[in-house]
This record gives sequence, structure tokens and C-alpha cells, in this order.
Amino acid sequence: MKKHNFSAGPAILPATVLAEAAEAVKEFGQEGLSILEMSHRSKPITAVVDEARDLVRELLELEDDFEVLFLTGGASSQFFMVPMNLLGEGETAAYIDTGTWATKAIKEAKNFGEVVVVGSSADKDYTYIPKACQIPAHCKYLHITTNNTVRGSQFHHLPERPEGCLLVADMSSDIFSRPIDANQYDLIYAGAQKNLGPAGVTLVIVRKSILGNIQRQIPTMLDYQTHVKKGSMFNTPPVYPIYVSMLTLRWIQGQGGLKAMQRRNKEKADLLYQAVEAHPNFRPTVAKADRSIMNACFVADTAAHEAAFLAYCEANGISGLKGHRSVGGFRASMYNAMDLASVQHLVDLLNNFKP
Amino acid sequence: MKKHNFSAGPAILPATVLAEAAEAVKEFGQEGLSILEMSHRSKPITAVVDEARDLVRELLELEDDFEVLFLTGGASSQFFMVPMNLLGEGETAAYIDTGTWATKAIKEAKNFGEVVVVGSSADKDYTYIPKACQIPAHCKYLHITTNNTVRGSQFHHLPERPEGCLLVADMSSDIFSRPIDANQYDLIYAGAQKNLGPAGVTLVIVRKSILGNIQRQIPTMLDYQTHVKKGSMFNTPPVYPIYVSMLTLRWIQGQGGLKAMQRRNKEKADLLYQAVEAHPNFRPTVAKADRSIMNACFVADTAAHEAAFLAYCEANGISGLKGHRSVGGFRASMYNAMDLASVQHLVDLLNNFKP
Repeated sequence: MKKHNFSAGPAILPATVLAEAAEAVKEFGQEGLSILEMSHRSKPITAVVDEARDLVRELLELEDDFEVLFLTGGASSQFFMVPMNLLGEGETAAYIDTGTWATKAIKEAKNFGEVVVVGSSADKDYTYIPKACQIPAHCKYLHITTNNTVRGSQFHHLPERPEGCLLVADMSSDIFSRPIDANQYDLIYAGAQKNLGPAGVTLVIVRKSILGNIQRQIPTMLDYQTHVKKGSMFNTPPVYPIYVSMLTLRWIQGQGGLKAMQRRNKEKADLLYQAVEAHPNFRPTVAKADRSIMNACFVADTAAHEAAFLAYCEANGISGLKGHRSVGGFRASMYNAMDLASVQHLVDLLNNFKP
Repeated sequence: MKKHNFSAGPAILPATVLAEAAEAVKEFGQEGLSILEMSHRSKPITAVVDEARDLVRELLELEDDFEVLFLTGGASSQFFMVPMNLLGEGETAAYIDTGTWATKAIKEAKNFGEVVVVGSSADKDYTYIPKACQIPAHCKYLHITTNNTVRGSQFHHLPERPEGCLLVADMSSDIFSRPIDANQYDLIYAGAQKNLGPAGVTLVIVRKSILGNIQRQIPTMLDYQTHVKKGSMFNTPPVYPIYVSMLTLRWIQGQGGLKAMQRRNKEKADLLYQAVEAHPNFRPTVAKADRSIMNACFVADTAAHEAAFLAYCEANGISGLKGHRSVGGFRASMYNAMDLASVQHLVDLLNNFKP
């Protein structure tokens, strides 16, 4: 029996994508080979990478200056690659600290230049998005985490920034979940394992014009320019994770693109948040205006109710609902591939739960 | 029709591994989920990573001081991570230059300390393994590439080195192909996509006692100690590539381990090299004593014969026989998973080829 998969990541993927992805492991098209054993430089595989790149460009309507890269190392590696490539010694970068990943990104950036934290919600346990942040005029870039997977908070409006200050965003857990004005950004990165594909590939979208402007010696593999020049084929890329991501991007496009995803995601999130708010024993943890449409975090009034509801859900085909180990409570991750029916099922369980 | 897959990497994997790997994409065990959408911290997935780690330990008979890590970024990322973690400023490392990957490793190491090239086969286009290399007593480590995938050369004897000089090896294309005395090494790394699994995971085997001894500031993700402490789970690891690697390691063990692999691989290599040597229009490119049992490189006497034989092979179900784009000629990669029957098929074509 297929479970209702509320895992925060690696996370639910469309059923049709999984079926096609399984076939390719047996045999890829009519190639007489499994996709797992084909050279990354063979025509069928370079066609996969090209299609994935084109789909990212189309879905986000990217200007020509952008390059789309498929790297590895997760968003965690972008925490240091961003300042290593963009922040010269003595230069300053602005970060907004919305917890967890943003906090880690700040820590890594400090090894490369000056970091000013222009906003933080640490005072209220990261349950809101800081507003009206003042970004000093000399900052090289502003870094935001558009969606905090662990806390369930999400930027719904872009912060203002001084002219000339670049915008860098970790979109690991909300990329492709809604239309964005991608051309307002200068560098976007995302681990694939939420809306995009399985674990093992990291999407980086970067303006070519912002690269190569600092003096630091950068190892070849860590220099974005290496991968721009070689079209993500400097070394062997993670072929299968890229392939599954390409299938998922095709699926997103087939469903109607990012507008359709947003409609779907908002409907699911509204349904769940309303049910949690209406229930006498549960409450959402994040400020209403800043709630994520991807990860809904909520808590029960007592530890006993929490344990009982979790057990009740698990007995009824729900997987991955437990909150992050650093936070507790519940986290319902409702990425693109999740059907409304799964959220309705969770809401039904919530409404039936009378402790 | 299944092709005879002589690709240098990503490369042939055992048929039973591919069948099981395809099933797991549909549903992993009785979990009600695809392996691609399961949390890396769920019990079934941590069990996969644990088993993969244990199998590496068992197959190589590793001492307790070793830690087995599953990272990303390919061997190309180890080219800089090795010196970044092991070579303090002002310290010296010795490298043997057997071409291509060794040459790249040397280039990256120079950013971190002094590099002395103690042996090189560049004078003869990397067609042999340098012997009797003299390694200065003060060298922190000696780095070798045990098998050059592109040139088809392989170390069959370990170079001698001064006491206290660590031994670091890139074994990307011959790990698990033969028994080695792994405890003579201090750090071994290998991209998975030859004998181990699909592209997307990098195996690193490192002695814990050699880490943390230098002053340099290292980004968290690039510090081996981060991954040692967290058992390769500091961030989301490439779950599926690790899973397929685990299945392949199980297969190796089931076949009789590294001794059985060596027997099989030697039989295949002997068969092919003898046929090439016996043919009036072809010759192997590498010195006899240094030929790889993984990648057999050979050339034809004329460009016309080369093109004709390649076309003849492709018309007869052979894939991936073309030499590396930097070298030309032919390269028959005969990794663990290749059956003797495929090599026999290639030899039959060779014997039938009378231009």
C-alpha cells in the first residue's frame, strides 16, 4: 500500500516520474543499457542534461545571463561556495537569519569576508520572517533562505536592497513551488531532494556576469566558472539524480507550470492550516503571514496528545509527519507532487482525533 | 537486446543489481514508498548506508583506525580535499604523475603546499608506470593513481616510501578489482562509477588518526572530520547511488570477494591482450608489465582500420569501445561486472576482422 508521504526531504515525487525512472534503471529507452551504466558523455545522457537545463530556464523564464548548473554537495556546499566565489577579502555580505540553514550559511560565509546579519527571528525561535531589514549600501550581496524547511516559515515578499547589492537565495525547499521573478536574483541554489528530484544533485542558477570578479585562489571544482564553461560536465555529474529531476521538471511543465503548482500548493496548505487552527488541541507555530505553503509546522497542547496523534497517523498510512529532531511537534511537508487527497486524509485524521 | 558494455565509466553493473535497483525505485521493500522519496534519516535508509560501510570494511579487511565515508563531488573533489586536509602550509607532498587524473591532482595540490613530482611517465605519453621513485624523507604523503582509466596503465607493485610518509591513492577505476593490503594506505578515494556503482557518490576511506593535524581553516563540508563525526550524514547524502553501491558490494561478496574478482578480471584481460598482440593490425599501447586489468588500450595500424573496426564492433552489439577523446584508439573497460563472454565476443570480432 502506497503511503501518504509527508517527508521533508528526500520527499514525495510524482508517481509517473517514479514509474519512468524505474524503467530507465532496467533499460534506458532502446539503448540496450541501464541508465546507471551509460557514459555521461553519450548522446542520450547529454540530451537528458540539456533538457533538464532547458526546462529550468523555461519554467523560471531566465534571462540569457543566467547559467543553469547541476552540481553536487547539497545546499550545504553552497553555503561556502557562494562567499568563496562572490565575496572578496574585506568585502561585506548581508544575511537574514531565519534559522537552521540560514544560520549555517552565515557561519560558513564568515570564513571568507565580513558578514552582517541584517535581520533575525532568533528572538522568537525563528517563528517569523524578519521585516524591513536595513541593508548597508556597501554589501556585495544579500543572502536569504526563501523557505525554512525545519521551522516552516517562508518569504512571501522580497526584502528591499540597495542598488548594486546582489541577491542570493537558498530555495532548496520551495523552488518550483510558485512563480517567482527569477530575474531579480543573481544566484539561486537548491538541493534537489524536495520539489526537484532525489538526493544527489544540487541546482545552481547563476548570472555569468557576476563571476570571476574576485582575487581568491579557488580549487577548480569549487569555481562556478569551471562548471559554466563545461556545461556541468567538467567531471562525471550525478547522472541518475539529474535524469529523475528532468522527469520531474517535465511533469511540472505538463501540469501547467509554476502557476499551476502554486494553485495546488496553496489549496493544500490552506486546507491543513485551517484544520489545525480549528482544532482545540493543536496550533500552528509560525506567524500567520509567514507560514510556508511547503512545510506546515504545528504542535499539540500536551506531549501525550502529540504522541497519540503521531501514532494514530502512522497507523493510518501517514509517513514522515514527525517534526525535525531539533524542533519536535509535527511537520507536514506538502511538496508539488503531493495530491490534495493526501492532505485531505491528514485533515480527516485530525478532525477525527478527539483525545 | 542487451549490449556488451565496455564503457570506461559510468560503467557496467551486475544484471541482478540493476534488477533490484529498479524494483527499489518502484517500492523499497515493503515500505510503501520509492527509495527515491524516503528520508535519509529513516531506519531503512540508515541501514543501507551502514551495510555499505560494513561491506567496504569487510572486503578490504580494514583496521579500526579507518573510517569509510560516502561523499560527493567525484575524485575530482578529492584532488583538492586531500591537500586541504593533510598538507599544511610549507609542507611537501610527493606525487607520481601517470597522466590525466594524476596530473590534475598535482595541479590542485599546488594551491595548498609544496609538491614534488617524484616520478612521471610523461616522456612516453604515459604508457608506463614510473619505477624506483625516490621520495624525499620530509614528504607528508605520497599520492598515486593506482589505475589510469584513460591510458590503461596500473600499478602492480606499491612504490617504497620513507617511514612516516603517508600513502594516498586514487583508486577510482580499480578499487575492489583485486585484493590489496589496504592497511598500507592512509587515505583511499574512488568515484563510484566504475566497479562500485552509478555516478553520484565518492568513496573515501581514511585513517582517523591522520586528521585534524593542520592549522588551515576548512569549510565544514570539506573537512573529513565533519563526515567522520556524522557517519556521512552531516547533510543529505546521495541515497540512491549509495544504495546501488551497497547492492554491488553485496554482489562482489556473494561472488567470492576480491580474490574471485581478481581471478575473473585477470582471465578477461589476458584473453583480450593476447588477442590484440596476436593480431597483425593492432597493438596494445602500454608497457606489458604495467597494463591495466580494468582498461585495455590498443590502437590500429591505420586510421581507416580504426574506423572500420569500431563500426564493425558497434554493428555487433559492442558499446563504449572508443578510446578517450584525448587519446584516441580503443579502450576496452572490463570492470568486475563484465562477463568473460563479453570479452570473448570482442575477441571473436577482433579475430574475424581481416581488413
